[in-house]
Amino acid sequence: MLYFCSTLEEYKNLKSKLKSKKVGLVPTMGNLHEGHMSLVERSLSQNDLTVVSIFVNPTQFARGEDFDTYPRSLEQDLQKIEKKLAKLGDNNKSVIAFAPKNDEEVYPKGFSEHIKAGKLGKILEGELRPEHFDGVVTVVKRLFTMLAPDNAYFGKKDFQQFTLIKLMTEKEGLKLNLEGLQTVRESSGLAMSSRNGYLSKDEKELGLNLYKKLKELEQLLKKEKSIELARDQIKKTLKEDSSFNYLDIRNANDLTELKDLSVPVVILGNYQVNKVRLIDNMEVEVK
Amino acid sequence: MLYFCSTLEEYKNLKSKLKSKKVGLVPTMGNLHEGHMSLVERSLSQNDLTVVSIFVNPTQFARGEDFDTYPRSLEQDLQKIEKKLAKLGDNNKSVIAFAPKNDEEVYPKGFSEHIKAGKLGKILEGELRPEHFDGVVTVVKRLFTMLAPDNAYFGKKDFQQFTLIKLMTEKEGLKLNLEGLQTVRESSGLAMSSRNGYLSKDEKELGLNLYKKLKELEQLLKKEKSIELARDQIKKTLKEDSSFNYLDIRNANDLTELKDLSVPVVILGNYQVNKVRLIDNMEVEVK
Repeated sequence: MLYFCSTLEEYKNLKSKLKSKKVGLVPTMGNLHEGHMSLVERSLSQNDLTVVSIFVNPTQFARGEDFDTYPRSLEQDLQKIEKKLAKLGDNNKSVIAFAPKNDEEVYPKGFSEHIKAGKLGKILEGELRPEHFDGVVTVVKRLFTMLAPDNAYFGKKDFQQFTLIKLMTEKEGLKLNLEGLQTVRESSGLAMSSRNGYLSKDEKELGLNLYKKLKELEQLLKKEKSIELARDQIKKTLKEDSSFNYLDIRNANDLTELKDLSVPVVILGNYQVNKVRLIDNMEVEVK
Repeated sequence: MLYFCSTLEEYKNLKSKLKSKKVGLVPTMGNLHEGHMSLVERSLSQNDLTVVSIFVNPTQFARGEDFDTYPRSLEQDLQKIEKKLAKLGDNNKSVIAFAPKNDEEVYPKGFSEHIKAGKLGKILEGELRPEHFDGVVTVVKRLFTMLAPDNAYFGKKDFQQFTLIKLMTEKEGLKLNLEGLQTVRESSGLAMSSRNGYLSKDEKELGLNLYKKLKELEQLLKKEKSIELARDQIKKTLKEDSSFNYLDIRNANDLTELKDLSVPVVILGNYQVNKVRLIDNMEVEVK
């Protein structure tokens, strides 16, 4: 059963009516693609009630970014959720599509719980988008408070975002489980993203340079087991291809500086294709 | 509780899960306004389950009409339904918003039950839109078959449409109750219509000429109790104001020629405001 609601009051009403034992949350900005749907599928398998929040959060966009043009497609989003539910074929599973009717529904007058993403919110993506992660952790905490899920699901395409949300959840002492799911890719290897819709076929081809470079670095690390060699390769790439906004190698546990290869590794990149910034990453187990 | 579904299969699934005793249908093309919401409210008061179908039916539009540009606004439509439910405050009432995901969901391959609106489908609106009412009665019958409501609700702004649907229902021997509800008007008197969204403030002002003329004829009929005088007045109006596509006085029971004033009377008009055709009507009890 797919329910729709656009107010917190109605959400609470629905939730109490449904008497669900376990609630899973998939926070989204809508325009759902297969990446999102893998999160929905996972949540469905682990919870009686799955909440898909659909909210294009203004506070994580800076002036001049694509807030106004960010693709909105509620009808198709609902259809995709319905299809996933039908495929599961379990009539005891419920989904609430929660699409707040306006920003005040999420940030009521007097809302003051703005939180900061901290130091790790200032590197990588945070260097390009200075306030972005403050907006992200604030809205995610707000959604957790409003919707009270037992579990929440995130795509690891946004690796830094997921890391910062994990840190926020620990720091704020929130009682829920977070799960990060593998990036879903187009058959070419391009990471699924709502912003891929901005790209022409040729631009997608260009965007693949990011994925290819990540794969190359993964191979290098696995073969040579040397952070230095990887860093040299990264430097060379950044020099040769100015489309990279960044390309870096980090400790995958917490995105801190990578000191040795005893910890899991993540290579992260941001690649400019005309006006669109694509991000992607690759986790590598070197041991 | 507001459910969303876009397939017939899921609708049937929902309906059987909900075990509703009475089902009311409000067939719409979306872009819901207060007129629609009065139908939803009525259905909520008379049924456990209300189905609001949202389907812009291509077969009732002719080439060159506004099918492609007809306003679609699912998100706001769902919000309005949710609000109406919340206002009612009865948790045992359910609404399914049924928005078929494509035309095939309504007209599957091999669909052959095209029906004709008959002679009364060729007069008034039917003279301006030759195939229109065939498309209307076909889709309404199809929705009745798919959704199996006990009651169905229509606005009497589309008086001829409602009359033809009543006739179709009798002729086809369908077992359900139809109810036509009074036209909801803006405070100016202008009949609510999704197509009012096409109009500027000045154009709305122009559109009011239709309502004013209907009121004038109503007064005349009540005062003079003369079909002839009303017909003279209509002729004069049609001559003077070329924006009227038609203006007519008919037997309100079945839209046949009005012979005397022992039957309920309806005055119907269609008024052109630039590219937009506005319709309205007025029922008059002369006795």
